[in-house]
Amino acid sequence: MTAITETFTVHSRGKGTYEITDRVDAILQKSGIQTGMVTVFIQHTSASLIIYENADPSARVDLEGYFERLVPENAPYFIHTQEGADDMPSHIKMVLTRTSEVIPVARGRMTLGTWQGIFVFEHRKASHHRVVSVSVVGV
Amino acid sequence: MTAITETFTVHSRGKGTYEITDRVDAILQKSGIQTGMVTVFIQHTSASLIIYENADPSARVDLEGYFERLVPENAPYFIHTQEGADDMPSHIKMVLTRTSEVIPVARGRMTLGTWQGIFVFEHRKASHHRVVSVSVVGV
Amino acid sequence: MTAITETFTVHSRGKGTYEITDRVDAILQKSGIQTGMVTVFIQHTSASLIIYENADPSARVDLEGYFERLVPENAPYFIHTQEGADDMPSHIKMVLTRTSEVIPVARGRMTLGTWQGIFVFEHRKASHHRVVSVSVVGV
Repeated sequence: MTAITETFTVHSRGKGTYEITDRVDAILQKSGIQTGMVTVFIQHTSASLIIYENADPSARVDLEGYFERLVPENAPYFIHTQEGADDMPSHIKMVLTRTSEVIPVARGRMTLGTWQGIFVFEHRKASHHRVVSVSVVGV
Repeated sequence: MTAITETFTVHSRGKGTYEITDRVDAILQKSGIQTGMVTVFIQHTSASLIIYENADPSARVDLEGYFERLVPENAPYFIHTQEGADDMPSHIKMVLTRTSEVIPVARGRMTLGTWQGIFVFEHRKASHHRVVSVSVVGV
Repeated sequence: MTAITETFTVHSRGKGTYEITDRVDAILQKSGIQTGMVTVFIQHTSASLIIYENADPSARVDLEGYFERLVPENAPYFIHTQEGADDMPSHIKMVLTRTSEVIPVARGRMTLGTWQGIFVFEHRKASHHRVVSVSVVGV
């Protein structure tokens, strides 16, 4: 049985989705695990994770547009506004998506579907360095 | 220590929730694991997973109706529309719910609450074969 | 390789967020695991889990207010109303947040970010005893 935990950093450049599938897979390959599970975790409260279609970019444009409408900046009832108009919506968008994802491993590969990729969903306007930790456990 | 990963297919017949608790439990029982965790993962971007009340069907009717209102078809701002009016809403509903769930195992059983069941949440109108992968790790 | 699963109870006193980071960490410390993963799971369908900012309480006030608006009580289309006006919204809020979270472990510590805490998000008005199960697997 093997267990490893590693981290990597994603340099985001504003709101949007940033694919990290290859970086997660590199840690799995390094572990040598054939059967088990991969946990992906983002160490932030204003960015999140999603597993999303990685084929047609228009699906990502619509996703990001929808979230802007669902959690608008400058809602009159927000009181947590000191860090900017995009701060409180970023926390809510994070809660509505995911902080952790776990992907089963079979025959040394993550069991992702054909169109699935793992993404960091950045909710802040400014550039950020986002730390993702990945844990692999299995045999 | 044991680790197994298996898959099964759910035949969905339109939008709605389809319980898979027994199918997940069968893989756990086959593994023989007494203590550890079960990961459930759906290999699609237009269907998702939820853990939900499995007693009163009216709670599922209201859930599905709410999601239809929250993410309406034919929103004028969607550009990813080639695959039908229910396609882009299906991706968003998936992101708002879950792709993976992990359930702790104690004494050979998932520690689900009395009213909790594991469901595939199908977001497309047409029938689909949905692949679910399940990984069990423990002792 | 070690695997343990334990449960604890959170006594909620109405809608709101209740931090449980220390209680989860206590189970990790008891396990002695240095590398692996911690799964946190809530055994209910009207309360959920979030990983959220634990520094400025105003961020939690705004989160809770947003969810009240997003999933209002007494929506005219709800039919699952026998258990009170806050029951059906509680199920939906649970689905929109998380039932399970998994946190990688490195050097005997959860890899939480500086501002991240683990919270039970209670969606019912009345007091409840909420059972959280925690599973730790690793070496």
